[in-house]
Amino acid sequence: MLLDLFTPSVQHALDLVGIFVFAISGALLAVRKNFDVFGMAVLAEVTALGGGLFRDLVIGAVPPAAFTDLGYFLMPLVATVLVFFLHPVVERTQAAVNVFDAAGLGLFCVAGTTKAYEYGLGLTSSAVMGLATAVGGGVLRDVLANEVPSLLRWDRDLYAVPAIVGATMVVLCLRFDALNPVTSGLAAVSAFLIRLAALRFRWRAPRAWNRRSSAREAPEDQPSA
Amino acid sequence: MLLDLFTPSVQHALDLVGIFVFAISGALLAVRKNFDVFGMAVLAEVTALGGGLFRDLVIGAVPPAAFTDLGYFLMPLVATVLVFFLHPVVERTQAAVNVFDAAGLGLFCVAGTTKAYEYGLGLTSSAVMGLATAVGGGVLRDVLANEVPSLLRWDRDLYAVPAIVGATMVVLCLRFDALNPVTSGLAAVSAFLIRLAALRFRWRAPRAWNRRSSAREAPEDQPSA
Amino acid sequence: MLLDLFTPSVQHALDLVGIFVFAISGALLAVRKNFDVFGMAVLAEVTALGGGLFRDLVIGAVPPAAFTDLGYFLMPLVATVLVFFLHPVVERTQAAVNVFDAAGLGLFCVAGTTKAYEYGLGLTSSAVMGLATAVGGGVLRDVLANEVPSLLRWDRDLYAVPAIVGATMVVLCLRFDALNPVTSGLAAVSAFLIRLAALRFRWRAPRAWNRRSSAREAPEDQPSA
Repeated sequence: MLLDLFTPSVQHALDLVGIFVFAISGALLAVRKNFDVFGMAVLAEVTALGGGLFRDLVIGAVPPAAFTDLGYFLMPLVATVLVFFLHPVVERTQAAVNVFDAAGLGLFCVAGTTKAYEYGLGLTSSAVMGLATAVGGGVLRDVLANEVPSLLRWDRDLYAVPAIVGATMVVLCLRFDALNPVTSGLAAVSAFLIRLAALRFRWRAPRAWNRRSSAREAPEDQPSA
Repeated sequence: MLLDLFTPSVQHALDLVGIFVFAISGALLAVRKNFDVFGMAVLAEVTALGGGLFRDLVIGAVPPAAFTDLGYFLMPLVATVLVFFLHPVVERTQAAVNVFDAAGLGLFCVAGTTKAYEYGLGLTSSAVMGLATAVGGGVLRDVLANEVPSLLRWDRDLYAVPAIVGATMVVLCLRFDALNPVTSGLAAVSAFLIRLAALRFRWRAPRAWNRRSSAREAPEDQPSA
Repeated sequence: MLLDLFTPSVQHALDLVGIFVFAISGALLAVRKNFDVFGMAVLAEVTALGGGLFRDLVIGAVPPAAFTDLGYFLMPLVATVLVFFLHPVVERTQAAVNVFDAAGLGLFCVAGTTKAYEYGLGLTSSAVMGLATAVGGGVLRDVLANEVPSLLRWDRDLYAVPAIVGATMVVLCLRFDALNPVTSGLAAVSAFLIRLAALRFRWRAPRAWNRRSSAREAPEDQPSA
């Protein structure tokens, strides 16, 4: 059974699911920012495909998958239409969106790490690319929407850690020649569950120690450009 | 006559015109944001060359045209000098700038689509790259200036639609093997005229249906990245 | 002696120093923005490696050096740990950070220009890539932190000019076949000293002439993208 999980067509279906839920989060942010329908589509595409696009540019996989697979491009448009007509409903189901997004996080960090390794990157770099694949789209979404990326904010539940755990598990399997559909699946599920736990129990990462006057968000005196 | 329009040297001249007018818009935004002359030059370069740079990275055309053609690099500096000394005059001629910018939009969406197709992308992906070439520089300009990209804002006249129409016309011509200087020119002129009409008649794109409490720009509870 | 300065291992050590000080500036900004420890690490990595990453993507050097040299990746994490525990101390030594940052600026503009030229870019384009290598990380840092890039702001001491001088010196040496460790070192030291002088004497770049009503930061009427 589990072996079937990662035949090419199933992998592709999982990719599309991840793309779809990331696109939903992009389109919803566009609605909150009062963007028009084109802004929604742009933000949906960028959120869903941005992380993989960055990975493909870095590893030299051009043209990136986002431009060779029509389904990757169309899925965010479907998400845009859905949010356009049903966004109050979609927002009411935010809990469900969070679950799907956690699933996308798990799938993307595993797929990103594996692809980077296939393109010849080292183990650590592959894990970093897996992390970038999983979180890159969300960062681009927030930058385009002119917001501080929620990845960076201390008042958000852990998002990077689950992806780091998943990517690290894949890399360890690669190191010990044990990567197969079962271990890949375990890595994705681990990232998924850790993210759900972070949401459920409001896990946060610490800020720098001993914060005092510097915490007042004063503009830096002479930054380095 | 029309055939002459697209000899290499004329195409190059049209490119330089598009680059120039985009650079003007970047330099003007820098003045409004109170940047210094280097900020003006950076914003002019990014606005003029950013869209094509992104396209070239995605299709694997490295080094990008922006770095192989000295004219592409120098033109935004000319625009910077002009705006530096004459910006009140340039702003008074905003209507003229808008017309040139619409021309740049038309030229870039056609040139971008054609180049992407030459590099082996599919028809849909080529059209997307044409759109990205035309609007990418403006998005980067606004991101660097720390503003919400005007491409995404609902209170701006249609900007993506003209480029989408132009890129789609090119793709249809490619599909039916009918791309030639005349049809290319028609696509560029169509995008140009639609943009002018959008400016003249204040065409806007719709926002999501049934907007209520979510419209209050509340910070999202738990975004996905 | 000076010839020893640029054996591969010394060059590598200089690169790591530049990466380290840029990473410090990224981690410090993250503390000021109230980010958590992961935000600090992301901002440190982006600041230190972003400029070189952009250069490598443009010149087609994939995978970029940032992903092939483990030391490049680990150094920003060391900087993050340091700032995490000691940031009040680090801030008190801002003057020292500025000196190191100026050194990084000098090293990066020379190394970036040289590498771009080795990959076949023209002289002007190589100098532009040297500038982009030196300042790109800082721009990405500020964009991710949702601030106006300090590179663009008129109220910051000159930052681009020292890098432009250093890159231009390298390009002139290349043009006259006179690039060697001594002239490379001179270029880096010149950029370093000019930056220090700019900090010491508060050198600023001019803004556009004849600024009047347009200076009021009014939202532009009809921007071009």
